[in-house]
Amino acid sequence: MKPYAQLTREELLALQKELQKAYEDQKARGLSLDISRGKPSSEQLDLSMPMFDIMHSSAEMIAADGTDVRNYGQLSGIPEARKLMGDLMGADPSQVIVFGNSSLNIMYDTVARSVLFGVMGSTPWSKLDNVKFLCPVPGYDRHFSVTEQFGFELISIPMTKDGPDMDLVEEYVNNDPEVKGIWCVPVYSNPDGTVYSAETVKRFAALKPAASDFRIYWDNAYVVHHLYDDNEAVIPNILEECEKAGNPDMVYQFASTSKITFSGAGIAAMSASKANIDDVLSKLKWQTIGHDKVNQLRHVRFFKDINGLKDHMKKHAAILRPKFAAVIKTLEDDLGGLDIARWNYPTGGYFVSFDGMEGTAKRTVALCKEAGLVLTGAGAAYPYGKDPKDTNIRIAPSLPPVSEIEQAMELFSICARLAAVEKLLEEKA
Amino acid sequence: MKPYAQLTREELLALQKELQKAYEDQKARGLSLDISRGKPSSEQLDLSMPMFDIMHSSAEMIAADGTDVRNYGQLSGIPEARKLMGDLMGADPSQVIVFGNSSLNIMYDTVARSVLFGVMGSTPWSKLDNVKFLCPVPGYDRHFSVTEQFGFELISIPMTKDGPDMDLVEEYVNNDPEVKGIWCVPVYSNPDGTVYSAETVKRFAALKPAASDFRIYWDNAYVVHHLYDDNEAVIPNILEECEKAGNPDMVYQFASTSKITFSGAGIAAMSASKANIDDVLSKLKWQTIGHDKVNQLRHVRFFKDINGLKDHMKKHAAILRPKFAAVIKTLEDDLGGLDIARWNYPTGGYFVSFDGMEGTAKRTVALCKEAGLVLTGAGAAYPYGKDPKDTNIRIAPSLPPVSEIEQAMELFSICARLAAVEKLLEEKA
Repeated sequence: MKPYAQLTREELLALQKELQKAYEDQKARGLSLDISRGKPSSEQLDLSMPMFDIMHSSAEMIAADGTDVRNYGQLSGIPEARKLMGDLMGADPSQVIVFGNSSLNIMYDTVARSVLFGVMGSTPWSKLDNVKFLCPVPGYDRHFSVTEQFGFELISIPMTKDGPDMDLVEEYVNNDPEVKGIWCVPVYSNPDGTVYSAETVKRFAALKPAASDFRIYWDNAYVVHHLYDDNEAVIPNILEECEKAGNPDMVYQFASTSKITFSGAGIAAMSASKANIDDVLSKLKWQTIGHDKVNQLRHVRFFKDINGLKDHMKKHAAILRPKFAAVIKTLEDDLGGLDIARWNYPTGGYFVSFDGMEGTAKRTVALCKEAGLVLTGAGAAYPYGKDPKDTNIRIAPSLPPVSEIEQAMELFSICARLAAVEKLLEEKA
Repeated sequence: MKPYAQLTREELLALQKELQKAYEDQKARGLSLDISRGKPSSEQLDLSMPMFDIMHSSAEMIAADGTDVRNYGQLSGIPEARKLMGDLMGADPSQVIVFGNSSLNIMYDTVARSVLFGVMGSTPWSKLDNVKFLCPVPGYDRHFSVTEQFGFELISIPMTKDGPDMDLVEEYVNNDPEVKGIWCVPVYSNPDGTVYSAETVKRFAALKPAASDFRIYWDNAYVVHHLYDDNEAVIPNILEECEKAGNPDMVYQFASTSKITFSGAGIAAMSASKANIDDVLSKLKWQTIGHDKVNQLRHVRFFKDINGLKDHMKKHAAILRPKFAAVIKTLEDDLGGLDIARWNYPTGGYFVSFDGMEGTAKRTVALCKEAGLVLTGAGAAYPYGKDPKDTNIRIAPSLPPVSEIEQAMELFSICARLAAVEKLLEEKA
C-alpha cells in the first residue's frame, strides 16, 4: 500500500467505502473492549497472591525495630519498608517516607501542602498571584489534573527522545520565579515510554531555579517495569545528581508497588533530601498518626529485598510482552507504510503512544467508542485535555487478554485509517 | 483523711514531707510506664488476627459488585464495606465513602478541602479573613491541632454532662458567619467519656448556621466502644435528625475500625448527605484512584455484618474493664474525700478524665514524668494546649497490663496529692 497522501481523490473515496464497510462489520460484532487505563491483568495480580499466605501470628506482626505494625505510630513507615522502597528509588532509608496505597495521593498531598503551607518555609502558594507548573507532553493525565485543580498555569514542554526539551525547561525554571514544579516520569514515561538520557537527568540536577521552592516531581512509577531482560533502562540517580550539583533539596521522588503487587492495595513512598523529608513530616504529623504498616511489612516479607522484587518483575514482563507485541504487530501490519501515523516501541512501562495524522485523534477515538472500544480520551495526555494538533492516543494493553487486544487493535487500525482518509478528503475538497 | 483545704499549714508541711518520701521511693523504682495515648493492647489486637486467615485465593478477591479489589478503582469504597461502615454510623451505603486506615486523615483532608476549594460551592476558606472553629473542652488534642495548623481561631466551648454547652454553641453558630465548624465526639467523648444527650443531638440538628458552609464534624470514634453490656450508650442518629430539621447537609460523620480491629491497619469512613458525598467525591477523584479495597473486603468478610462487629466489641470490653477499674479504684482509694480532684466514671471509650486542683495539672504531669510515667501533656485537651485553669489530665489505660496500670496510678496519685499540697502551701504563704 502506498502512502495515503499520494492517493487521488477517487482512490481515497474508494478506500473510504472499503474502510466504512470494514468498520460496519466491526460494529456488528457488538464488541465491548477497553484499552484505556494502565491496569494490571488478573494474571499479573495473581503473581502476588502468596503475599496473603504469610503473616498470620501476632509474633509475625513485629517490625525490625520492635514496632507492633498493628498499632498506631511510625509516621515515616517501618524501617524495613523504608529500606525496600529506598532501594527501589535509589535512596537511603532516612530519605524515605512510606505512605499508604497510592503514589498519586502522595503527589496530590505534596502539592496541596505547598499550596497551604509553602515549601521549607517559603510563602504558601495560595498567597501567590500565579503558580506555573511545567508539563512534558504527552504526559500522564492525572498529573496534569492535580495541578489544574489547584488553578496553576500549566505549561506544555515537548518531549524529545531523550526526555523533556531541556533548553525550554532551563529557560522557564532558571528565569521565572512563578515556575514551581515540573512533572516527570523519567523511566518508560507515560505514555510514550521514553527513558530520560543521562544528560537530561544531569541537566535537571543542574537547574538553577529562580524560585527557591521549585521542585522536580520525579514520578518513578515504572523504574523496574522492564519488558526485556536484555534491555533494561538505567538512568542516573536523581537524588545523588541533585546533591552533586549543589541542589540537594530540588527533587521529590515518588514510587509505588501499584504495578508490582496490587494496584489497589500496594504501598507507595516518596524520597527526598533529609531537609525535605523533615519538612514533609512536620506537616504530615497533623494529618495522620501513620499509614498501614501491616501492608508495609507484608510487602517486605513477600519480597525479602529489592532483588526479590526485581525477580518478581520478570514475571510481569513475561505476561506483558505478548500484549505489547500484539499492539505493535497490528500497527505495523495495518498502518505501516501508509504515512498516516507513528508510534513508539516501548521497552517498558504500560503504554504505546500513538500519533495519527493531525486532526484525527478525536475522530479515531469517537469511531472506536461507537464500535465498542474504549480508549483514553484523545488529548488526555496534554494539559487541560487539549492536544493542540489532535494527534495523540494512548494505548494501554495490560488489562485484556491477547485475543481481545488483537480484536481491539484491528478495530483501532480501521478507525485510524478511516479518520485519516476522511481528513485527506476534507483537505482535497 | 479530711479535705486538704481544712488542713493547717503545719499539717500540710508534714503531709508534704510524707508524700515527698513516697515520691522518692517511687522514683527509686526506675519505672517506665506510659498511659498517654489511647492505644489498644496487644491482647486487643490479637482479637482480630483471624482476619489474616481468610482471603487467600484470587476468587475470594471479588467484591459483591464484581470488582476485583486488588485492582484500581471504586473511589467510594466497595459496596459491602460502605454497608458495614454505614451500619456502624447509621447511614445508608449511598451516604458513605470508605477511605484508608485513618479517620483523622479523612477529617484533616475534609478541612483541607474546605480551605482549598470551599464547601459545596462556597468561597474557599483560604480566601477568608478569618475562620472560627468551635472546640468543646476538654476535647481531643488531634482535632484541635488540625484546625490550629490551618490558622483558624479556636473557640473553647465548655462540656456539660449532656455534651457541649448548647446555649453557647447556638449563640456562635447561629450568629457568626465566621464560625465554620465544630469538633464533636458524641459518644464516650475524648477525654471525659460524655455521651451527648438526646436533647443535645436534637439541638445540634436544629442549628440555624449563619454560614451556609458550616459543618458539624461528628467524630463517632467510640460509637460501639461500650464497657458494660447493660449500659450501652445510644444517641439519636445525627444524619436523620439533621434531615428532619431541614439541615440535611450540615454534618459530616466519621468513624473507623482503629479501635475495633487494628489501629494501624483498620478502615475508616465518612458519612453525610448525598450532596455532601458528591461534593467530596468531586474533589477526591483528583487525589486518588481509590483506597485499599483488599483491606475493606477483609474487614467485611471477618465481621460478616454489623452484628458480628458488635459481638467483637464485647471481647474488647472484657479486656478493658479491669483496666478502667484499676484506674478508678486507685483514684477513689487515694484521693477520695480529699476534695482536691474529681474524675469521671466512663462507661465506654478510651479515657478517664481527671481534674486536679486549679494550677496543679502541669506540676502533676511533670512529677510523674520525672519518676518514669508518661502522661498526655497537661493542657493537651484544650485548644493551643492551654488549659486555662491547669486542672485537666487525660488518663489512657488501654495499653499496659493491669499490674502496670496499678503501679502507674499509685505514682500518679502521689504526684497529684503532692502538687495539691504544694499549691495549698503556696496559697497560705
